[in-house]
Amino acid sequence: MSAHIDMTSVLDQLRQALGERVDTTDAALDAARADKSGHAASGRPLAVVHAASISDVQATLRIAHASGTPVVTRGAGTGLAGGANAGTGEIALSVRAMDGILEVRSDDLLAVVEPGIVNADLNAALFEHGLWWAPDPASREISTVGGNIATGAGGLLCAKYGVVRDAVLALDVVLADGRLVHLGHRSVKGVTGYDLTALMIGSEGTLGVVVGATLKLRRLIPGEVCTLNATFADVRAAAVAAAAVTASGIQPAIMELMDATSLANVHTYLELPAPPPGAAQLTVQTDGPSAHTEAESISAVLQHSGGTVRVAATPEEGEELLRIRRSMHPATEKLGMSLVEDVSVPRSALPDMFDEIARIENQYGLVIPTIAHAGDGNLHPNFTFRGDEVPDVIWDAASDLFRSALRLGGTLTGEHGIGVLKRQWLADELGDDQWHLQQQIKAVFDPTGILNPGKVFAR
Amino acid sequence: MSAHIDMTSVLDQLRQALGERVDTTDAALDAARADKSGHAASGRPLAVVHAASISDVQATLRIAHASGTPVVTRGAGTGLAGGANAGTGEIALSVRAMDGILEVRSDDLLAVVEPGIVNADLNAALFEHGLWWAPDPASREISTVGGNIATGAGGLLCAKYGVVRDAVLALDVVLADGRLVHLGHRSVKGVTGYDLTALMIGSEGTLGVVVGATLKLRRLIPGEVCTLNATFADVRAAAVAAAAVTASGIQPAIMELMDATSLANVHTYLELPAPPPGAAQLTVQTDGPSAHTEAESISAVLQHSGGTVRVAATPEEGEELLRIRRSMHPATEKLGMSLVEDVSVPRSALPDMFDEIARIENQYGLVIPTIAHAGDGNLHPNFTFRGDEVPDVIWDAASDLFRSALRLGGTLTGEHGIGVLKRQWLADELGDDQWHLQQQIKAVFDPTGILNPGKVFAR
Repeated sequence: MSAHIDMTSVLDQLRQALGERVDTTDAALDAARADKSGHAASGRPLAVVHAASISDVQATLRIAHASGTPVVTRGAGTGLAGGANAGTGEIALSVRAMDGILEVRSDDLLAVVEPGIVNADLNAALFEHGLWWAPDPASREISTVGGNIATGAGGLLCAKYGVVRDAVLALDVVLADGRLVHLGHRSVKGVTGYDLTALMIGSEGTLGVVVGATLKLRRLIPGEVCTLNATFADVRAAAVAAAAVTASGIQPAIMELMDATSLANVHTYLELPAPPPGAAQLTVQTDGPSAHTEAESISAVLQHSGGTVRVAATPEEGEELLRIRRSMHPATEKLGMSLVEDVSVPRSALPDMFDEIARIENQYGLVIPTIAHAGDGNLHPNFTFRGDEVPDVIWDAASDLFRSALRLGGTLTGEHGIGVLKRQWLADELGDDQWHLQQQIKAVFDPTGILNPGKVFAR
Repeated sequence: MSAHIDMTSVLDQLRQALGERVDTTDAALDAARADKSGHAASGRPLAVVHAASISDVQATLRIAHASGTPVVTRGAGTGLAGGANAGTGEIALSVRAMDGILEVRSDDLLAVVEPGIVNADLNAALFEHGLWWAPDPASREISTVGGNIATGAGGLLCAKYGVVRDAVLALDVVLADGRLVHLGHRSVKGVTGYDLTALMIGSEGTLGVVVGATLKLRRLIPGEVCTLNATFADVRAAAVAAAAVTASGIQPAIMELMDATSLANVHTYLELPAPPPGAAQLTVQTDGPSAHTEAESISAVLQHSGGTVRVAATPEEGEELLRIRRSMHPATEKLGMSLVEDVSVPRSALPDMFDEIARIENQYGLVIPTIAHAGDGNLHPNFTFRGDEVPDVIWDAASDLFRSALRLGGTLTGEHGIGVLKRQWLADELGDDQWHLQQQIKAVFDPTGILNPGKVFAR
């Protein structure tokens, strides 16, 4: 890295190479500071580059590499860990405009896309071919495929249909110095050399810039979905019931859990009658040819576990039931700022994890509305607060929460990534040896440290 | 690495640390030179260490690291690329005796195992829990889970149930200097840091020694399987029919293709009446609750594609049909030595790949009996020869074959790995930039180059 970066010169070079794609308007610079986590970089980036092609990305990285200027790659800015926030002296490299679908192969069940395409837009196009890309983060209407790949996104359907790393065959990546490499393969199988495609997934812009992706597709699931919900006296009972569904061997497509606070908040937000005090809810959706019989079996398990079950008579009524779960995010936003945690535990540990959350609420004097992807053991405890800064008590409670998840065999982040908001705990989970190994791998890809510095590994 | 390795001293240190676990009998040293590829290292290793515990592995690597002695990790020695063959001056580190099942969790659908357990033995034990581990290499009766992980093994069921990299949650790995690290997580989701678990899968002993694995399990598929075969006038017709099945949207559990030479060889071997000259065969198995209706649909597709279809009336009769396919390996062994290739192409390219094989047979004056996992596009062309050395004409033809696969969007190896037999083509597929990147990653894990040197990357 050059000892002193001449920002004016870097900006001049970018403008010369990329012309109008270099954006230094106040609006663009401010937008690039933040994502959906509520966290923002303290300063503004040098410029936003709106790349429209692989060669735009390469040109940007060549200039950045030669000058030692940090580059923060962004898609739609919907991240929840601050991983794509660009600050002082950094280039925000947006690939949002690279949103093409280059190829759809129904016979080979694959699509080749640019990184900036929005997940839902891709799936709308694939629908015409009878296909879909399974990863379904809650942000799917607004998040990009490239961002899904950069964070290793999950979603609601993961227990049945997998996460991003199960759904990517190959990646085209621009390296820190501007070289383009092609990782992975188009075939179902392939073990030629190390699996750098998998290494790139979830690397949060620290190893390279994804400029193309070959995605593994599924055929649309035939038949109508069947949706039900079940109300329980408390969240532990709901979590035990969810574990019972998993243990029964029936695999729901979706199984979402809302604790009492979440459920009450959403009912207020949607102006629905209040649920019984303390009540928690599971929402379950089955799909495929056996959707109805599976829903009946799950209904029996849930009733046996003490739940009051309502089965939707139609897919439309089912959407109404799911709407309660889907309103969690806007309902929580009404309460102020929120630090959304993302711990994930083995499914059998879900009841114990809710016990830990209750303990932490009590110990730190907080209320922590929590939803969980109960089918896969991924929880999103929401720490709400007023003001711009996360209070210390919330950091302390979040730290306690994370250590509890780790004790239960879990992990710090199931699907949001590390970014800046979780980097202080990374080494605790990885152990120092692995933490150092991972940084040495970063150095192989990015010897001068220009790719998203300060993210993931800084502590 | 020390300039001069004192072999006597290394052997003394190993014996002092590991006692009777250090084996220098002729039989052990000779066995460690070879795998099932037919290829053997030119010399004998220094010793075989039969590790019985993680600390045995650590002790071995500490001595190897300090003295700069190469270490070749082995399981059951069933590899097909020479990756586990140990030669002069090397320590053969066998983890075959580490064959315990440490934990089976039906509720979390996971098992924790030692690397030396044989795939079929693990699945026999899991069967009692109503569970299975999906990767099913043809070697499953004799190959270890650790070897399956080291090669990134595939198998017959991959198109429907995935490959090894879809079925491993976490790995315990001893690094080159003897340190133990824990990679991955026990939860369904987890994106904490880089995915080093995936990096380790298929790394063929070049990055570390897998000493424990947390495997992602499935519940046993209910219902009886349904098996059928279909005979076609020639291999291209069979390949077109296989592509038609995939394109129909029905997902068979198994779909295997045998070309005319393979089919005739096996019929001779099994003393069955000869098939019609030039005839090729598909063998298809469906499973799950819809096995029979799916088999009927597939039967219709195959008949429409010109096949003569026979549907097994019972699972036992189905096993008889599959026995033909399963006898390919012993039938080929009767023909002499064999270089088994392992190219994989997008499924739609299967007919074109068979055209290429016909061209290569013609051009080089060879007969290349070929079977294919037609459901996933993975082909095993067999180059048979007499004597111990692969003739030049076969290397030339294999090289042509690989380049053809690459032109069709395919890859050098679908499930066997690179080892020594495919290392000369690795850079052709990866490109020089990625080839160098991968070697730098190896150097991060193995700075002194003691882990399986000469494998994968040498050319």
